[in-house]
Amino acid sequence: MSDLSRLSLNTATTKKWTLAEAVDGCVRAGIPAIGPWRDRVHEAGLDKAARLIKDAGLRVSSLCRGGFLTAADAEGQAAALADNRDAVLEAVALDTRELFLVVGGLATGEKDVVAARQRVADRLGELVPFAVEHGVRLVLEPLHPMYAADRALISTLGQALDLAAPYPADAVGVAVDTFHVWWDPELKAQIERAGREQRIASYQVCDFNLPIAADALLSRGMMGDGVIDFATIGSWVRDAGYSGDIEVEIFNQDIWDADGDAVLATMKERYAELVLPFA
Amino acid sequence: MSDLSRLSLNTATTKKWTLAEAVDGCVRAGIPAIGPWRDRVHEAGLDKAARLIKDAGLRVSSLCRGGFLTAADAEGQAAALADNRDAVLEAVALDTRELFLVVGGLATGEKDVVAARQRVADRLGELVPFAVEHGVRLVLEPLHPMYAADRALISTLGQALDLAAPYPADAVGVAVDTFHVWWDPELKAQIERAGREQRIASYQVCDFNLPIAADALLSRGMMGDGVIDFATIGSWVRDAGYSGDIEVEIFNQDIWDADGDAVLATMKERYAELVLPFA
Repeated sequence: MSDLSRLSLNTATTKKWTLAEAVDGCVRAGIPAIGPWRDRVHEAGLDKAARLIKDAGLRVSSLCRGGFLTAADAEGQAAALADNRDAVLEAVALDTRELFLVVGGLATGEKDVVAARQRVADRLGELVPFAVEHGVRLVLEPLHPMYAADRALISTLGQALDLAAPYPADAVGVAVDTFHVWWDPELKAQIERAGREQRIASYQVCDFNLPIAADALLSRGMMGDGVIDFATIGSWVRDAGYSGDIEVEIFNQDIWDADGDAVLATMKERYAELVLPFA
Repeated sequence: MSDLSRLSLNTATTKKWTLAEAVDGCVRAGIPAIGPWRDRVHEAGLDKAARLIKDAGLRVSSLCRGGFLTAADAEGQAAALADNRDAVLEAVALDTRELFLVVGGLATGEKDVVAARQRVADRLGELVPFAVEHGVRLVLEPLHPMYAADRALISTLGQALDLAAPYPADAVGVAVDTFHVWWDPELKAQIERAGREQRIASYQVCDFNLPIAADALLSRGMMGDGVIDFATIGSWVRDAGYSGDIEVEIFNQDIWDADGDAVLATMKERYAELVLPFA
């Protein structure tokens, strides 16, 4: 029997399941942790969501996600801050320290990535005190550069660490998601740096499938189905001192269409074979 | 009348044209330079291709492309070297100094990007003396990270410059293709570095269209149709000292289906409006 003690199901992997169904699925599969998306939490109701996860004995590895901080107008910026403060409070209620931020892309019609990135830095600065006050860490997630324009203008781990640098390590962390960063020629050095700076807040695993799906968001694959070398990246993350939860987050139409329990069974097998030996 | 003296048509933009048709199209449009792909040159025959470009009074801005250097077996490596030596000789025959290299992705079934990148470096080292002997510069082209696995394990300008560093600047250069590098948070610094190191061998322009096309290779767009800020990137390239040809290379099914002369007319307009003022 493999050691599943660090394995966490991100609820995006089993998209058709409600939060209650995902919790039950984890319990049936012996998966001890869950990383819920906020839409699933909202559907269930925050208090009920917190209670059903706790009653099932699961740990919340992270909350996905706040962010979308790039609005150029005052109204949009105020709305983003309000939503992110809500997300911080939701993380508290769910008893997780780690709140993922997907920082957002260009504003509508905008082409100035330098200015948009500065707005991310500005909004982050406004959010940090509130997060610190509530004991929540804001987790900057670099996304694959193919999503830079419309989802996240943080494209590398090094850039995320630069953005986090002004703040304490327990206030702003970074995520290492294999899908987003596997290609980065600086990856080893930046994972080492993230370890030294004590900012690795999450290690997420899924594969990079080829060809890229017609909907580029859905190219994430089950570990082993794509091109990613989990042994190498996992060793780097381990050697950088990360010993926390390992979340599996997969957007993939075939996996979404499959039976949830079967998906969790495959996920456990692949985790045991490809991820755990190097974790 | 705009100054088109630095504008070059990369023949991939008008995919359905033969080389002779592309040359004629450039002449009709008053475009003074052409960047042929090798398949179009081979179709025409090398000597005939060289003659028809020269007789038309066009300049060859670059030759696309050699590369694909990542074979893991001796036979594949020998074949790659032979093909790239042919490409060097073709560049000589076509009277261009600049030979693009798209370095290749992972070998079949391979997941070790570190090892595959080392093979790129090794093959490059073997090719440089031959290229130098023939007065041709090997131009390393970073490709967008979405093509890392299957097309080019050089994903950033910084990485290309690191790989070029052991060689003289007139032996190994780098290309700045807006589509591939616009997202890079290090872009300004690396363009400045490329200028200092005198390695900018080509500036290619096209846009990054959203959503990403179902065939991800075909997401390149006409300047102005996507998210790229040509003013900012163009200024960086100009300030880095680049004053050479500016090639337009677009893989896009709609553009390939359109009338070639109409494509060139639009290309000249967009170049004059979006690129030339900052070049």
